[in-house]
Amino acid sequence: MLAASLIPTEVAGVGVLNSAFEAVVGGLRASVLGFAEPEDVRAFHVPPVISRALLERLGYVDAFPNLLGTLHTFVGDNRRWRAIQAARLADGADWHSEQTISDVVALPATCYHLYPLVAGRTLAGPMTMTAEASCYRHEGSSELGRLRSFRMREVVRIGSPDDVPRWRDEWLARTRTWFEGLGLKVSVEAATDPFFGDAARMMAPPQRQEELKWELRADLGTGQAQAIASANYHKDHFGGLFGILIDGDVAHTACAAYGLERIVLALIAVHGDSPARWPAFVRGALGLGGTTR
Amino acid sequence: MLAASLIPTEVAGVGVLNSAFEAVVGGLRASVLGFAEPEDVRAFHVPPVISRALLERLGYVDAFPNLLGTLHTFVGDNRRWRAIQAARLADGADWHSEQTISDVVALPATCYHLYPLVAGRTLAGPMTMTAEASCYRHEGSSELGRLRSFRMREVVRIGSPDDVPRWRDEWLARTRTWFEGLGLKVSVEAATDPFFGDAARMMAPPQRQEELKWELRADLGTGQAQAIASANYHKDHFGGLFGILIDGDVAHTACAAYGLERIVLALIAVHGDSPARWPAFVRGALGLGGTTR
Repeated sequence: MLAASLIPTEVAGVGVLNSAFEAVVGGLRASVLGFAEPEDVRAFHVPPVISRALLERLGYVDAFPNLLGTLHTFVGDNRRWRAIQAARLADGADWHSEQTISDVVALPATCYHLYPLVAGRTLAGPMTMTAEASCYRHEGSSELGRLRSFRMREVVRIGSPDDVPRWRDEWLARTRTWFEGLGLKVSVEAATDPFFGDAARMMAPPQRQEELKWELRADLGTGQAQAIASANYHKDHFGGLFGILIDGDVAHTACAAYGLERIVLALIAVHGDSPARWPAFVRGALGLGGTTR
Repeated sequence: MLAASLIPTEVAGVGVLNSAFEAVVGGLRASVLGFAEPEDVRAFHVPPVISRALLERLGYVDAFPNLLGTLHTFVGDNRRWRAIQAARLADGADWHSEQTISDVVALPATCYHLYPLVAGRTLAGPMTMTAEASCYRHEGSSELGRLRSFRMREVVRIGSPDDVPRWRDEWLARTRTWFEGLGLKVSVEAATDPFFGDAARMMAPPQRQEELKWELRADLGTGQAQAIASANYHKDHFGGLFGILIDGDVAHTACAAYGLERIVLALIAVHGDSPARWPAFVRGALGLGGTTR
């Protein structure tokens, strides 16, 4: 039963998943990668932490300070640690009061690990990369699907200003068709990133006006549509920051992002708790075998 | 070429891996899980963060304060953030000075997510669980293989005081045979965890004396043997902390842990950079196909 397969831990928004849930995740992963000819996509494994300085340069801190988790560590010696332990025993001082911020943060989006791989390069033609990562966002809500730790599969396109928006539109259409083929009812809506505070006032309107971000939303069973995927066009933002060139000009970039846990929850909302009883066309599309019990 | 496949990022000990490297990781994963009858092992996906309070209760903070990364976040409102931004512009104040510690930390070992799944339960018989996670340890060194972010596959056994040490010994022997079947020269040595400061003096001698931890070490090409796997017996430590019972008594636990990136590096050190040219018996064992080019 999948409903019981997103096992809560003692902290909100952080769950452990059982093998029934993971079988569906595996099917989604393979199915998404089937959109493209494998030989045309360079695949990578990326870690769930990333350089703090990098995210500062990219403007992530200014736009989403509330979602970012920075890693702090204790860097003193045994003498210092002994003093901290003594203070803890004597007056209940926190052991972590003397931690210092480290050079890494919890990765908030998979694609931040991909652009640096081609930093400073001149590309001979458009390039497609993919990776999946556990991402972290310090979400305040604990509604279903609002996980703080979740997996995001991304496919990134780097190319010319002609190529990239066309690719983004194609992937948006393919993704919509894919979801419909899985029996999901999705709405496709121009969206904005959840910018914090003043950043929202400054950055959201142009993003919406230029239709840079499209979200595919589905009901996860809460009665409220949530984004399960998005297709985003960054124009020359990352190309400029990373010095990526193509055709003698700054490269443009786009990404298609898939929230794997949310897609599974959307499938459960439509087809029920037990993948063994999902319709054959869904099981087939996800490589779960033909048996419908 | 695998040597080029552990792609450095701008922070030490955090790398991106290409698909050639990942193909070997996938082979190792399947091969390790083949040790046991799949129906006897419950598999889970676990996230790379975990409850801070849990690790405090487990004593991780006391034993390894130097390795632990805690997540800190900004929890103020837009008004407060605006003040921080103003101070940053005016006198170069750090944006992160007002962050507060959150309820999660970077996961230091995969198995900490598994014991809570059976907390408070009385088991009818021994139980085997497995998971793989991206772990984080704030290592100071950046020698080859000393990654700060790395993947650890673990297999955990929970059972009676009779069953568990026997299981640990069996898995130690199986693991050694497995490595030898991959052409790796491994030494098997009684070891201790890298306890910090005074904890080392108090905790390492009994751990070594009782032979609770065995490491399988191989040369990663640095001329110095590093642990690529370990088999650990915790006696009733976790059973007691999590209230797990069996046969009317506190359950014992053991785990076998595999450092996936390090095992790939050990294979490279022996067989060379190109998996396509690895011996057929190695390619076969890892399901990489029979073709030796």
